[in-house]
Amino acid sequence: MMEPVKVGVLGLGTVGAGVVNLLARNGDEITRRAGREIRVTRAAVRSLDRARDCETGAIDIGTDARAIVEDPNIDVVLELIGGDELAYELVMAAIANGKHVVTANKHLIALHGNEIFAAADEAGVVVSFEAAVAGGIPIIKAIRESLAANRIEWVAGIINGTGNFILSQMKFEGVTFEQALAEAQKLGFAEADPTFDVDGIDAAHKLAILGSIAFGIPLSFDRIVTDGIRGIAADDIEYAEELGYRVKHLGIAQRQETGVAMRVHPTLVPERALLANVEGEKNAIMVHGDAVGPTAYYGAGAGAGATASAVVADLIDTARMMSVDPSGRVPHLAFQPDQITEEPILESPDFVCGHYFRVQVADKTGVMAEITRMLAELEIGIEAILQKDPPTAEDDARVIIVTKPAREGTLHEALDHIKALPTTRDGVVHYRVAEFED
Amino acid sequence: MMEPVKVGVLGLGTVGAGVVNLLARNGDEITRRAGREIRVTRAAVRSLDRARDCETGAIDIGTDARAIVEDPNIDVVLELIGGDELAYELVMAAIANGKHVVTANKHLIALHGNEIFAAADEAGVVVSFEAAVAGGIPIIKAIRESLAANRIEWVAGIINGTGNFILSQMKFEGVTFEQALAEAQKLGFAEADPTFDVDGIDAAHKLAILGSIAFGIPLSFDRIVTDGIRGIAADDIEYAEELGYRVKHLGIAQRQETGVAMRVHPTLVPERALLANVEGEKNAIMVHGDAVGPTAYYGAGAGAGATASAVVADLIDTARMMSVDPSGRVPHLAFQPDQITEEPILESPDFVCGHYFRVQVADKTGVMAEITRMLAELEIGIEAILQKDPPTAEDDARVIIVTKPAREGTLHEALDHIKALPTTRDGVVHYRVAEFED
Repeated sequence: MMEPVKVGVLGLGTVGAGVVNLLARNGDEITRRAGREIRVTRAAVRSLDRARDCETGAIDIGTDARAIVEDPNIDVVLELIGGDELAYELVMAAIANGKHVVTANKHLIALHGNEIFAAADEAGVVVSFEAAVAGGIPIIKAIRESLAANRIEWVAGIINGTGNFILSQMKFEGVTFEQALAEAQKLGFAEADPTFDVDGIDAAHKLAILGSIAFGIPLSFDRIVTDGIRGIAADDIEYAEELGYRVKHLGIAQRQETGVAMRVHPTLVPERALLANVEGEKNAIMVHGDAVGPTAYYGAGAGAGATASAVVADLIDTARMMSVDPSGRVPHLAFQPDQITEEPILESPDFVCGHYFRVQVADKTGVMAEITRMLAELEIGIEAILQKDPPTAEDDARVIIVTKPAREGTLHEALDHIKALPTTRDGVVHYRVAEFED
Repeated sequence: MMEPVKVGVLGLGTVGAGVVNLLARNGDEITRRAGREIRVTRAAVRSLDRARDCETGAIDIGTDARAIVEDPNIDVVLELIGGDELAYELVMAAIANGKHVVTANKHLIALHGNEIFAAADEAGVVVSFEAAVAGGIPIIKAIRESLAANRIEWVAGIINGTGNFILSQMKFEGVTFEQALAEAQKLGFAEADPTFDVDGIDAAHKLAILGSIAFGIPLSFDRIVTDGIRGIAADDIEYAEELGYRVKHLGIAQRQETGVAMRVHPTLVPERALLANVEGEKNAIMVHGDAVGPTAYYGAGAGAGATASAVVADLIDTARMMSVDPSGRVPHLAFQPDQITEEPILESPDFVCGHYFRVQVADKTGVMAEITRMLAELEIGIEAILQKDPPTAEDDARVIIVTKPAREGTLHEALDHIKALPTTRDGVVHYRVAEFED
């Protein structure tokens, strides 16, 4: 096993605490994949008095961020203090000291990325920033690596969850912009000062990064045409809907005939389109490559867990890069070969899920009661029932039932009973039901 | 600039031709990103007489696949012959000869991956297979790298485009399974022998791979419970719809209390769910990680372009791994630093897109004619018009227009005219419209 990678964290706020917690909770799983431990050894905070949302355990915590970026025992500096000036200074110092850097700071990258990356290339270190765009959605890696064979035609996305939450509220709850904003603030989706979100600045930071990696152009934040969603009238959302559109706040980077259009603005999107149907605080990004066609990426764009997921992925990538040992490569089956374990793989009777079944029965009083009694006896809950006339056979009825999640073996026991009833006409049609949160 | 990576291709069918064409078309763009050329130098085909769908140019084409896997001048073997026996033999020989391998062969990986990866690890080479699951969607990289900090709870997806096309046809066209299958065959989405697709075997191959990389278990194709979509009745699709569900053919790998459930079957999915709304031959996969929550990945699951996109991404990754030179790393801004170019970034008057505008006017005969004449004069097409009563001002009307794509400067010229009309009451509300194919 290789040495642990030693990480110094600047900032232990929401995201910093999320990273520390994630490494503590999934440390074994992460080591099974990465082949080496990712260990936070030092952290710098503004004030030692403040309570932390994480178990800081063996982490050496101080207030001197500069000491961390200069510490020869630190391999990777994780910049999570946000904002631009101090973050810029510390990241540049870390680079000058030969440290790799991971950051979630879109503001920093959008404004100073060109200088930062030039300095990093010069110093032979890597600055990673997956968490800077769309939180937990791996859009940077998708564009930089997975779509690297494509000429990218356009990138379009919902890259600010606050704005999308507000627009969803306006549509579904019929509230005004101001009411939706207040709700977002109450739920913690919007800051007390919502300027960066509702005026599109946060989205423009992210779009600057997306446009650059899509087209191979320098980061150009100040060239982005940026309109916010402040003051959108409920009337226009309604008219748009009547015309078959949904209003979404999109960031768009698009090759057009005369150049590249980079813009953040409220946008009418056809209602059947994928982007039109992304609701609440979620993010989604579409990327069109000339070979692959349209692709889409969806998930949580913010929050401690999602952001930490992206940050730790960057830390793992950095760890892999620090080693030329083949065992540091991405393992074929994701986990190190000696960490592949046999887990019990279930046979279908042990599956637990919802079930749909349809049975044709004699259309007599009491048949439905008999079927539902059978389910109740086996403690199978009913989600929905439908009774239908079959296309032929006038004296029959079709009973269609969707159950709540139940063990499949138990469901089959019930179906066997039902099939054996004298009032049952023929075989039972059975399909499984699955509800996966999205 | 580093030496080109020399690739030997086994098989020049649809995908092989797609790879050769993609490297020819986007070679410069790819080199700008990868920092070195990816060059196909040799190819083996079954018969030299058959016409190829690609410009084979400088490629040395023969019929002896074994000669390629043994050629000391070949760095990477690209296996695109499909099937399992011959492919297995050639891939193992390539590994034994110290070659890295890229393959799009799900059948091969699902059945023989455990042995292949053990041999590759032993030999210190890498076998890449992004194209084996969901074509152009970078799902392998997302799970193996981007979500590596997560404990994966479940993976669920539409991973067979043929089956999804058939189910979409049955729902939207009201046709039977047999009619939908015939249509899929006519359009080239289904093979003459559709067994692998409609019986779920192809999806089970892919699910075996997804389950393994999600949970860190060996590839276990023969443990997957596999039901096909043959014989699904139009009636059940209709009943499901009445109950608020859509029927989709899903591959599901899910941690349950007593073990891992791995299954491919027709599934009722709540109609608002993301997976319920993926139509036609498209693929989509959801992955739930404990930190990131649900994420989704969408795109083309098959076809020459999409598959070639994934294959070439693997070739680029392989090329990066072959070098310890920092210039071979993934560049910060996707393209090599000396390949970042300034492209014209448009100002908003030069944007070309659809436009939505709303204007309040005196409710008099001729006003609408005047507005539409103005648009016609500037050659701005109209997509839709709506006339509404304003909430107050009884003598007024609101005119809402969605235009066809037009230069934004020209649209503003029209709006300036409209604002200046004596019948126009107040300011104009303007939003942009965007239609991005998905």
